[in-house]
Amino acid sequence: MPPIMECVPNFSEGRNQKTINAILQSIQSIAGINLLHHTSDTDHNRTVVTFAGEPLPVVEAAFAAIKTASELIDMEQHQGVHPRLGAADVIPFVPLKDMTLADCVAFARQLGQRVGEELKLPVYLYEAAALHPERRNLATIRRGQYEGLKETITQIERQPDFGSTTIGKAGAVVIGARKPLIAFNIYLTTADVTIAQHIAKAIRYSSGGLAGVKALGLLVQGQAQVSMNLTDYRRTPIFRVVEMIRSEAHRYGVSIHHAELIGLIPQDALLDSARWYLQLQDSDNRQILEHSLNWGAFSIP
Amino acid sequence: MPPIMECVPNFSEGRNQKTINAILQSIQSIAGINLLHHTSDTDHNRTVVTFAGEPLPVVEAAFAAIKTASELIDMEQHQGVHPRLGAADVIPFVPLKDMTLADCVAFARQLGQRVGEELKLPVYLYEAAALHPERRNLATIRRGQYEGLKETITQIERQPDFGSTTIGKAGAVVIGARKPLIAFNIYLTTADVTIAQHIAKAIRYSSGGLAGVKALGLLVQGQAQVSMNLTDYRRTPIFRVVEMIRSEAHRYGVSIHHAELIGLIPQDALLDSARWYLQLQDSDNRQILEHSLNWGAFSIP
Repeated sequence: MPPIMECVPNFSEGRNQKTINAILQSIQSIAGINLLHHTSDTDHNRTVVTFAGEPLPVVEAAFAAIKTASELIDMEQHQGVHPRLGAADVIPFVPLKDMTLADCVAFARQLGQRVGEELKLPVYLYEAAALHPERRNLATIRRGQYEGLKETITQIERQPDFGSTTIGKAGAVVIGARKPLIAFNIYLTTADVTIAQHIAKAIRYSSGGLAGVKALGLLVQGQAQVSMNLTDYRRTPIFRVVEMIRSEAHRYGVSIHHAELIGLIPQDALLDSARWYLQLQDSDNRQILEHSLNWGAFSIP
Repeated sequence: MPPIMECVPNFSEGRNQKTINAILQSIQSIAGINLLHHTSDTDHNRTVVTFAGEPLPVVEAAFAAIKTASELIDMEQHQGVHPRLGAADVIPFVPLKDMTLADCVAFARQLGQRVGEELKLPVYLYEAAALHPERRNLATIRRGQYEGLKETITQIERQPDFGSTTIGKAGAVVIGARKPLIAFNIYLTTADVTIAQHIAKAIRYSSGGLAGVKALGLLVQGQAQVSMNLTDYRRTPIFRVVEMIRSEAHRYGVSIHHAELIGLIPQDALLDSARWYLQLQDSDNRQILEHSLNWGAFSIP
């Protein structure tokens, strides 16, 4: 079987449908690409796309999308509640099948070099593809956002890994490799964003919370939102994060209104959650009818 | 694609491994049978087997298993906390793929006639295959259990649908057709079986509870157990039943210790539960990575 790589690029445009469509078309124009999902949020002013295929077309589609986004999105005009550094803000490669994270690192670095040389954009490599340990963490690279980077890019510690050291209207591109993650948001029954910020601080790893949890408190559609990435959902599962938020929210006299997934979720994250809440001890996927029939026994590793 | 039928026979032996193995072997001896799951419980003194395949071999394997169980199990010696009428106690056919419930009804009636004629066992047809409306409900047929049926089988309203009107040591066989169901048990943090019986009465349809819920309170391994069948898990989902039991248990000062599935569960029952508990509004299977890649997009209807 050929290897399958996933790419989950984030673009700094969630409102202008013409621009969003142009980005999607640049991805779909590459033969062999399976466009799996896309979602746009007007408050975040951001679009997250999920596509997959064999590695070479995936790299090609990522390049095409970065080019289109950089030409069409003007970061000088961009406003949104989610932190961002550029038009094609973050481009992660994810190993899905018959390939390793190290393979994705190699593809990310190749793409980074090409984007620097051909598009002249400043490129930072992050997570598993980082060339500097302090750049493993996306939040560190994105500190100060687009506006801040314009001032600081000439500083030695902010030098891009590839491409131009001056910043244009397309901003910078962050390219990397990581394992599958779960991106999801929890909306609280309050418009008080400070509660979402307190909860985000309590649950995220960097300020003392759960391993593998990144979290921000934002205001979206008039509701306080805890916006998260779970980077290792097998060790730190989504149900434990949700229940910790429920408990923290209770402390502030509010509740969870609802949750939303951004992009796609690995199936086992939901099946494990069901078994935990239903208290189904000693049960695993072999007790699922469709799996026992080999209808969809395959899960990502 | 050929039709796929499931059979989930229940046998009145959960302790003698030699007998259990003989029954399993009689099923596996039929070509084209996929033995999916089997589970035995010593307190219930009962084994539940799940197998599937094209309809004709499935009927053949069901016949072979009934024959083996009738020869090896002596109901005069059988003791167990779960109600039962015979050695091969209940034999339901379930449509899984490219066939209808009406097809299963036809196969159930064919099998019933053959079991009556060749094995001379009393046969009752139940659920969708019932020939009398009052026999749609398994609990009605099983009233008085094996011991009671010995006394009452000569009464006109207890006449079997096929086979002998006298009852031997193998008891009677109940054969039928139904949609997929979820069989599961909840163990309470108490040894007081009356609490499980109160809860079972509160939640089951026949005494005023939830539609499509059958429930009994039993004592298993020294723990009070609510033993259930959910016959329409899309309308009356497992999470709602579990949360109703949690609430009733709280009323009696006890909790849910854990739950167990008997046999197999349709995948959507778990995925729907995860989405409900995680409050993932507006999310469906299309947001599952493996489904979007068509790795296991197939769910039973």
